[in-house]
Amino acid sequence: MSNLIYYNGQFKEKGEVYIDPEDRGYLFADGVYEVIVAEEGGLFKLEEHFARLERSALGLDILLDDYKGLQEAAVKLLEGSGYPKAKLYIQVTRGTETRNHAYSDGLKPNVLMMVSRLAGNPAEYFQKGVKVITVPDERWSRCHIKAISLLPNVLAKTKAKREGAFEAIQIRDGFVTDGSSSNVFLVEDEIVITPPATNYILNGITRVVVLELAAKLGYLTREESISPDRLFAADQVFLTGTTTEVMPVCAIDGKKIGSGQPGRITMELYNAYRELLTRQ
Amino acid sequence: MSNLIYYNGQFKEKGEVYIDPEDRGYLFADGVYEVIVAEEGGLFKLEEHFARLERSALGLDILLDDYKGLQEAAVKLLEGSGYPKAKLYIQVTRGTETRNHAYSDGLKPNVLMMVSRLAGNPAEYFQKGVKVITVPDERWSRCHIKAISLLPNVLAKTKAKREGAFEAIQIRDGFVTDGSSSNVFLVEDEIVITPPATNYILNGITRVVVLELAAKLGYLTREESISPDRLFAADQVFLTGTTTEVMPVCAIDGKKIGSGQPGRITMELYNAYRELLTRQ
Repeated sequence: MSNLIYYNGQFKEKGEVYIDPEDRGYLFADGVYEVIVAEEGGLFKLEEHFARLERSALGLDILLDDYKGLQEAAVKLLEGSGYPKAKLYIQVTRGTETRNHAYSDGLKPNVLMMVSRLAGNPAEYFQKGVKVITVPDERWSRCHIKAISLLPNVLAKTKAKREGAFEAIQIRDGFVTDGSSSNVFLVEDEIVITPPATNYILNGITRVVVLELAAKLGYLTREESISPDRLFAADQVFLTGTTTEVMPVCAIDGKKIGSGQPGRITMELYNAYRELLTRQ
Repeated sequence: MSNLIYYNGQFKEKGEVYIDPEDRGYLFADGVYEVIVAEEGGLFKLEEHFARLERSALGLDILLDDYKGLQEAAVKLLEGSGYPKAKLYIQVTRGTETRNHAYSDGLKPNVLMMVSRLAGNPAEYFQKGVKVITVPDERWSRCHIKAISLLPNVLAKTKAKREGAFEAIQIRDGFVTDGSSSNVFLVEDEIVITPPATNYILNGITRVVVLELAAKLGYLTREESISPDRLFAADQVFLTGTTTEVMPVCAIDGKKIGSGQPGRITMELYNAYRELLTRQ
């Protein structure tokens, strides 16, 4: 088993791939990315992730020819790694040229894919729920594009880690947006609620799956703006994300949510999600 | 003459330096930078640029030991290049580690410096003034940190370029902030005015120099919020920046500013700035 890397058409071992310092991804955060997990059932929601990668790239006017070929390379990379549970990272940057804010037309994008073992979160997190904090949302105004300009997310996540929390829930203009690498849900009177997918939200693949699963399980779902007060008063709060899965939240900023234990509907959604992930 | 590169303590030729794909600068825009120009007088405002580099890094909790040594390496790199007019780019990223939003303590920063020939802007720009456009400010909320998360700036500058304009002036919440790689000034009744250096402004070294020069030339200066209407009605508008210098603006969004020619006070400031740059 090994941490294989794909770079611009070539398959290599980790340590064999190096980036040009004039890659616009390095100088300007001028690129997009995806993270996909694989368990028994192969790469989960592969088509959806690649469709979003293409949308993100188009949103930045990054033109990549062959998404289909890249998708096949992703599968090949995963198989080559030999990991039973794996995490695939894909990054597409605009290309390499002399540093200048304005980019040239016709640049050839650089494509990086890395595969690594998927450790997963400790079982205890799902059994007891996690603590989170709230922070001001400092991100730019096109959060719906999955770009590599992740510095605000880095600062928010590190603040959470330092305070012994799993995640930082971001608040913009008095309303909940996203976690630093997850989406936020609450359950109120058995209704499953999450903020609508505006330009201030990264519309997670898992977010969409969970909304579908909730409906399938017979729960009403709503996409509406959520104030922090409403979040604190919710019966249940959980986070979703590719590696976060469906993560119950037991406390926010030191205040207990609901019973302080993972909620029933949260865990129904977690189980339904795990079933889908491993049986696809 | 050559485009020399410095990377983590070593001096190399362009094409000999490669970046690890797990550099957090590449994956997360987790880094800071400076651009310094040199003409006859050597690296202009070297101390000020390095002081800001350190402030930016500290603002992101990036800890670099030896700024003094780096400053000496910058001078050495410039001398090695042999360019009579040069541009030095310095980038410090948090370090290299397995991809994870939250960073580990004690990472060793990666330091890149590149030197290239300084082309300068065409003389015509200063003689006739440049056209600019206005765009919504889409940046994050810590614009005072000179971070490499420049994607919104890239999009703004490219929009300007495509519309045949020199720069995009960004508007946030109804007020002028910055150009995509410059600061904005106006002249109103012979008073030199620029927005105050809040967290929404990158406080340019040239911005500070020009405020000082204006005072030295006997003009009143003010730092106050500027609405777009006020900008359009100004007697003179100009931009400042390390490579922008003091750039007269003749039209914004197709509307003529003042007489449509570079203003007298703008050009006094331009000449004073050039004198300082070449005679230091």
